Amino acid sequence: MEMKDVLEMGQRLRNWGRWGPEDQLGTLNFITPEKVVQACRLVKKGKAFALAIPFDSRGPQTGFGGRINPLHVMLASGADAAAGAQDLIPGGFRYADDLVIMPLQCATQWDSLAHVSYDGQMYNGYDARLVTGYGAGRNSIDKMKDRIVSRGVLLDVPRYKGLDWLEPGYPITPEDLDGAAGRQGAAVEAGDIVLVRTGHMALCRSRGSWEGYAGGDSPGLALSTAPWLHEKQIAGVATDTWGVEVRPNEPPKSFQPLHMVLIRDMGLLLGEILYLDELAEDCAADGAYEFLLVAQPIPFTGAVGSPVNPMAIK
Amino acid sequence: MEMKDVLEMGQRLRNWGRWGPEDQLGTLNFITPEKVVQACRLVKKGKAFALAIPFDSRGPQTGFGGRINPLHVMLASGADAAAGAQDLIPGGFRYADDLVIMPLQCATQWDSLAHVSYDGQMYNGYDARLVTGYGAGRNSIDKMKDRIVSRGVLLDVPRYKGLDWLEPGYPITPEDLDGAAGRQGAAVEAGDIVLVRTGHMALCRSRGSWEGYAGGDSPGLALSTAPWLHEKQIAGVATDTWGVEVRPNEPPKSFQPLHMVLIRDMGLLLGEILYLDELAEDCAADGAYEFLLVAQPIPFTGAVGSPVNPMAIK
Amino acid sequence: MEMKDVLEMGQRLRNWGRWGPEDQLGTLNFITPEKVVQACRLVKKGKAFALAIPFDSRGPQTGFGGRINPLHVMLASGADAAAGAQDLIPGGFRYADDLVIMPLQCATQWDSLAHVSYDGQMYNGYDARLVTGYGAGRNSIDKMKDRIVSRGVLLDVPRYKGLDWLEPGYPITPEDLDGAAGRQGAAVEAGDIVLVRTGHMALCRSRGSWEGYAGGDSPGLALSTAPWLHEKQIAGVATDTWGVEVRPNEPPKSFQPLHMVLIRDMGLLLGEILYLDELAEDCAADGAYEFLLVAQPIPFTGAVGSPVNPMAIK
Amino acid sequence: MEMKDVLEMGQRLRNWGRWGPEDQLGTLNFITPEKVVQACRLVKKGKAFALAIPFDSRGPQTGFGGRINPLHVMLASGADAAAGAQDLIPGGFRYADDLVIMPLQCATQWDSLAHVSYDGQMYNGYDARLVTGYGAGRNSIDKMKDRIVSRGVLLDVPRYKGLDWLEPGYPITPEDLDGAAGRQGAAVEAGDIVLVRTGHMALCRSRGSWEGYAGGDSPGLALSTAPWLHEKQIAGVATDTWGVEVRPNEPPKSFQPLHMVLIRDMGLLLGEILYLDELAEDCAADGAYEFLLVAQPIPFTGAVGSPVNPMAIK
Repeated sequence: MEMKDVLEMGQRLRNWGRWGPEDQLGTLNFITPEKVVQACRLVKKGKAFALAIPFDSRGPQTGFGGRINPLHVMLASGADAAAGAQDLIPGGFRYADDLVIMPLQCATQWDSLAHVSYDGQMYNGYDARLVTGYGAGRNSIDKMKDRIVSRGVLLDVPRYKGLDWLEPGYPITPEDLDGAAGRQGAAVEAGDIVLVRTGHMALCRSRGSWEGYAGGDSPGLALSTAPWLHEKQIAGVATDTWGVEVRPNEPPKSFQPLHMVLIRDMGLLLGEILYLDELAEDCAADGAYEFLLVAQPIPFTGAVGSPVNPMAIK
Repeated sequence: MEMKDVLEMGQRLRNWGRWGPEDQLGTLNFITPEKVVQACRLVKKGKAFALAIPFDSRGPQTGFGGRINPLHVMLASGADAAAGAQDLIPGGFRYADDLVIMPLQCATQWDSLAHVSYDGQMYNGYDARLVTGYGAGRNSIDKMKDRIVSRGVLLDVPRYKGLDWLEPGYPITPEDLDGAAGRQGAAVEAGDIVLVRTGHMALCRSRGSWEGYAGGDSPGLALSTAPWLHEKQIAGVATDTWGVEVRPNEPPKSFQPLHMVLIRDMGLLLGEILYLDELAEDCAADGAYEFLLVAQPIPFTGAVGSPVNPMAIK
Repeated sequence: MEMKDVLEMGQRLRNWGRWGPEDQLGTLNFITPEKVVQACRLVKKGKAFALAIPFDSRGPQTGFGGRINPLHVMLASGADAAAGAQDLIPGGFRYADDLVIMPLQCATQWDSLAHVSYDGQMYNGYDARLVTGYGAGRNSIDKMKDRIVSRGVLLDVPRYKGLDWLEPGYPITPEDLDGAAGRQGAAVEAGDIVLVRTGHMALCRSRGSWEGYAGGDSPGLALSTAPWLHEKQIAGVATDTWGVEVRPNEPPKSFQPLHMVLIRDMGLLLGEILYLDELAEDCAADGAYEFLLVAQPIPFTGAVGSPVNPMAIK
Repeated sequence: MEMKDVLEMGQRLRNWGRWGPEDQLGTLNFITPEKVVQACRLVKKGKAFALAIPFDSRGPQTGFGGRINPLHVMLASGADAAAGAQDLIPGGFRYADDLVIMPLQCATQWDSLAHVSYDGQMYNGYDARLVTGYGAGRNSIDKMKDRIVSRGVLLDVPRYKGLDWLEPGYPITPEDLDGAAGRQGAAVEAGDIVLVRTGHMALCRSRGSWEGYAGGDSPGLALSTAPWLHEKQIAGVATDTWGVEVRPNEPPKSFQPLHMVLIRDMGLLLGEILYLDELAEDCAADGAYEFLLVAQPIPFTGAVGSPVNPMAIK
């Protein structure tokens, strides 16, 4: 597949106008009220899984492109109180406050539909120049603030293949996705948010280092999954990798071409850097690969992404 | 009531050791798996309400104590792409990235149990000096990353009283809470997260200004609600105000004394600056004041609070 | 004067190409090695004046346009050390570290020649689109890192006029500048950096508030000073106001039109928010209005401005 | 030498009370007005050297202890203007603004006298607990805002020894300092600010990487230089290394012990990460190793350090 084929595929799978000329939600429109009700009915055990990695300075970022790890600093602390610095507060009240500096793409995150563009346009045909230093005039993440609640389905590809993890560079195909879903007994349906586990984070943990995780070689979705994702009418897809799609990218002279099709053409919600290993263990143990997923963003006005702590509730 | 009475009440309502000497979750322990399952059963309409205010520079903060409003900046944008600054990226991929600088207490938030201390101790007897410039060694917000899922109940006090909002300085009593719950037909139960609407945010909106919201006079919970909150065995309480409790504070020479009892002694989760007006309208319309509440924090390691976009799902 | 006259004046005073097609220093080229030597010879008393205001959260910024006051936070402190948080450091060493978040235009500052543009061009004809989210590709402040050393001359306009301060809205004319220079006995020469005192900061201090300082009405240079500044071949001009030029701006439907001419056309270094009152007292006392000025920027790569603590040494 | 010897030396060289019980300037008191005048007289060529390294994300920091490299972001840009985002600004004015996030110890810097303490005390006997999350109550860098102007002397140790750079781990002795000064013909005098070149930055440049610079092995001042620095009555000392003193530190179980003596006991101003190579070339060429040094900090209120762009003017 060459870039012209990618662009042609983007043209073919394009959802622009499908939900009206003013739409800024894309495939989240596949989540209906009925879907939300059904998703809540999936909860049987009352157990929640937090799918965010720890937000701290030991995260996977290397500083490239300004993407540092979250920098958490204290504005006031118990140590300050003990040092007498809060003695003027009446009644004995003592407190701690803190602050964070973080790229919105630094750790577990949703990409907004304003995150990726090409040929001067973003999802639904909006001019990419509507995203400026003042924020995104269209397709910003805050538009999705109350919409990311649905049925979640975990597709644990390495487990299906009998592996601890997929090798970096392994392209996950539609056949892999169907195979995992079939083996797990959880069919992917319209409106679902699909969590694809590659095991790449487990590999990093086994090595004791994030080395190579951010932007390096990685297993991930092949370009050929785009029609599959389109046809299934899923609301979103998220992985335990830095960038959803396989790396090195296909075709060679490209950068994240699947993002171009999925975000800009299809309006598909993409999630990255999810911690799926504990959830995967539980799914393997009880055989239930479907759950309620509540993964709302923080509504940063005009933002092109958001940190998120997705809750999978079984 | 004087400060000595507050401290005595704190002593009486103290939950230290109740869930073991190593506990860092406090009243979240009241949320059982069964409770989670039941809460999910409450969802009938498939409609979600985002209870966070917009996270942007037009928020309520005034800079006091370092609490600025979220500062959202772009690391890259569509305008940059149009200017040619991304021309080296192969394959036509163009992107936008962003970064936020924000106090964790700047907008809709959870206070962790490390947020408030007195007499050198925080919840469960931990030394307050475990909270330093390096973060909170105990009771940090990340401990709660997968625990804030439960039944939510809205107590709309002004609506119960036939008012648009409670006046600043109005102390909400246990009778008000019981009265609202009774009128609404939604009894407060163990493990619930109780959302108390005061209308203070509606007042600010009607004025078109946050003036006085952050730290100024405000309606809020009276000190006398502490035993009520304790007896009900609720998991958390949150309001549409800056600081949960009534201001000016009671007694006069004090600062947020109810925080001292609720957070430090009881280990109760407190939420602040929630946007409850739209949810309240819906509850008044359909008569259902109970719902699934999924309000997970972002797991900042060692943090004493977290921004949150609580989802009330009906 | 209307905008078309401003633009015409800009055309007339334009220094583009004057120092070659690759120049990024503008009028700093007027500072010769001989000038530097002469400036150093002016030092007689061995007394230095720091012309920066305090960099802290009590500064003049209001948050408009993302311009917050400097936010200074501690990464580690003596209180932390006392709380035992540094006990692992061997040998007894204890330390404090800190961090600042600040707009480069938040307090006493130099505008780089990339700060202002119009008609798509900046100083020396460079395309304004060379300034993107990745920084300024031309005319950035770091280019000036070793060039802002020269003779400084203080023109204390209110003192010359027998006033404590000039009223907001007062346009300082060439006659005022000549009058002050004449009265003070310090003629403005080629290569000088001219500090124009309006007394506006003294007015704020007398009121005890920065209210209205940032972007509000202010005394300042009239548009008619542009030819004067050009003819004198000065290297830079700086004031004790937020924005150098008189506000409300002349003509009515404009914004900082003098900046357009001075920065973009002339390539003149502009400094803002300088604390001149103490220096002015000293100059009035000893009658010496000339001094060595060393006012180097911090060399932020690609930045469009820099905080600065200008040193006037007499 | 063991830590007890270090502490004994600290006791012996202690300058507490030397300039009064309220002093917060330490050895800067050695700089007299006459000294400033004499320093200005040293300027012969009118050539200034900027001794700061570039402040950008490619700096030497690794994130350790929260010390990231400066993160420079744009608040507005020419690209935004071209995208139409500034079209509402009247009169054609277009602008760029920016913001920096930086540890004050991230690049070329002064340590304030509040930066290092031991046994609960900092310089002049102040309680180390006066440095809290709210800043330094004593010995902060802003106290020095107009005091760091003096004669600078470069001691180019590797050049004196006929080397390109000193090897990491090489301890510079008083004999080395005297030798370099003698060879260069520039005696160190009271009130001087001494710049010691080790060549460590040149080594990094030759390798094309900062690897190991921040906190790694490095040439630097031996503990035995403390009495020399005390006796000479210098005002400050700065190097082209991360931490002034030799690393690995002497004695083995210690961390920056020379800092303990120099900053906390002597009240000596320390500067780090200075770019001295270009200045050194010039000094070697013209034989003049003395110059005017103007190296004022940015006056961050309550800060324990400051970025600085020291100007050596010859």
